[in-house]
Amino acid sequence: MRSDVAHVTLAEIQDPVHRELDAVFDELGRVVKADVPLINDVSQHLLRIKGKMFRPTLLLLSAQAVGDVTSKEVTLGAVVELIHIATLLHDDSVDHSALRRGQPTVNAEFSHEVAVIMGDYLFSRAIEQLVKLKAQEPLEIMSRVTNELTIGEMREVMSYDGLDFSEKDYESLILAKTASLMAGACELGALAGGEEWREPLRRFGTSLGAAFQIADDLLDYTATEQATGKPVGQDLREHKVTLPLIAAIPRMNADERRIVEALMADASPHDAEISAVIRIVDARGGIAAAREQAMKLVRRAEEELDKIPSGVARDALNASITYCVERSR
Amino acid sequence: MRSDVAHVTLAEIQDPVHRELDAVFDELGRVVKADVPLINDVSQHLLRIKGKMFRPTLLLLSAQAVGDVTSKEVTLGAVVELIHIATLLHDDSVDHSALRRGQPTVNAEFSHEVAVIMGDYLFSRAIEQLVKLKAQEPLEIMSRVTNELTIGEMREVMSYDGLDFSEKDYESLILAKTASLMAGACELGALAGGEEWREPLRRFGTSLGAAFQIADDLLDYTATEQATGKPVGQDLREHKVTLPLIAAIPRMNADERRIVEALMADASPHDAEISAVIRIVDARGGIAAAREQAMKLVRRAEEELDKIPSGVARDALNASITYCVERSR
Repeated sequence: MRSDVAHVTLAEIQDPVHRELDAVFDELGRVVKADVPLINDVSQHLLRIKGKMFRPTLLLLSAQAVGDVTSKEVTLGAVVELIHIATLLHDDSVDHSALRRGQPTVNAEFSHEVAVIMGDYLFSRAIEQLVKLKAQEPLEIMSRVTNELTIGEMREVMSYDGLDFSEKDYESLILAKTASLMAGACELGALAGGEEWREPLRRFGTSLGAAFQIADDLLDYTATEQATGKPVGQDLREHKVTLPLIAAIPRMNADERRIVEALMADASPHDAEISAVIRIVDARGGIAAAREQAMKLVRRAEEELDKIPSGVARDALNASITYCVERSR
Repeated sequence: MRSDVAHVTLAEIQDPVHRELDAVFDELGRVVKADVPLINDVSQHLLRIKGKMFRPTLLLLSAQAVGDVTSKEVTLGAVVELIHIATLLHDDSVDHSALRRGQPTVNAEFSHEVAVIMGDYLFSRAIEQLVKLKAQEPLEIMSRVTNELTIGEMREVMSYDGLDFSEKDYESLILAKTASLMAGACELGALAGGEEWREPLRRFGTSLGAAFQIADDLLDYTATEQATGKPVGQDLREHKVTLPLIAAIPRMNADERRIVEALMADASPHDAEISAVIRIVDARGGIAAAREQAMKLVRRAEEELDKIPSGVARDALNASITYCVERSR
């Protein structure tokens, strides 16, 4: 998407904090341990999958950019990852998803019930760790963020089927669902430095997260199945309305609009119907408009980074912007 | 169950704090408000149902018994009720229950997805309110309690089908699933007075909650459908192992044990099978043993109450013991 920049790997971004990230992963293992065998079985399954730890990465890099990374930041890194995993568990569970990162989901491997309860367990464990730190700011940041996450989930429910789902609705959705936790991770990291870094780093995380989500939603219109591991047009198949479609609708003629409405009225749309809508969205500039919006957010994220001290950590945060819009998740 | 005491109504128990309970209900309405229409629709549905507010009642009575009830206790009352409702939402959702207190559940009226997300929303709102109080003790109490609740839910998953589910496993289950939140409510109330009241009131809540759960589980063996609003033997039908069965198993002969095992192997047991097992459990003293265990907990709860200042609030807490074991929920 950013043809002006070279390809960036996750390992490069994580390099300045790779030791601390290992410590976060160890901390995760300690925090989730319980004296209930079923909980430990599910934890083992989750830790085996091990995600990209992108949110702890943002937190640690933010901390390193403006201050020192201590054991407090390691705990906070585990907290944001726990909350992220808890969200994914509930997401997969309500969506009845069978795979996540190429591995069976907890609802598929164990049960729907276990996935919901395990999400609650991890979330409450995260809160416990925050409380143990006895610091008001992290609690304020994360209690706000977790509430926003649930509001984002609810807005997402409302984004299905609705051709009246507006660009403003979409913006509220991605800010709450995706940007809030990345912004929270950056703001938690900023606490390692002076108060003056909280605002720019939070705003950086917000723009980054929003760009990340738009890029992810764009993939559904542009990527091949090989690249994403999920079928193209999956959002349309599920009647999920995202930015490319929202941006294209006002420019469609009556015939084109009818084709979109027919897809939304069809409980299981055929591949041909989906391809037709993707072609219309592209022809009416929906994909270009979403790309433009993502680039606007990229520039905003870069501007915020300019306000914090330069160094390897800031460079890595800068690279994370490219990483987010080049290839999401 | 306690033939030595007169019948107690909820209104009598709530009388000393009925004004404050109204304030808790108003606070609930304020706290759950959002600028997302779907959230407000679900909240309206939940507030219309309005439960018995038993946990806020325990909190307010505990506070009144040892100190003054202020706006802080009203907020804490809303917090414990929110967490209770969130737990019920996830319970009903994973059980696919259609009714709760004679009203359609959120999963039945809206969707499974909305029920899971709304539970997360209410839980995160509760945490937000706690954080706003800027007090460490309530956060410590409630973060521990919410984690115990999820552990209790997971232990409950493990209580199905397992004839090796022991009395000790059952005790761990009811302490985490039911007693922890009642104990937490009492302990939060105790914070209104001196530090010395926390332990006795917490222990009172623990014994009360455990007795409440045993009485509830007993109803499945003893009550008529008219009295409980749910079919008798529902736990057995779902292969859920509770104290009466656990206590009876070691006293059963091989033939009786085979009848129980056959029920557990039957995916949809017939009424006759269920009645046969209930008769065996009764004949082998399982019901009597569970009653005896509940009475032991009642006496322990009474002993703890003897340690706190006498007055109308303590009398009401005493009456709540009778209320719990006479008729649960």
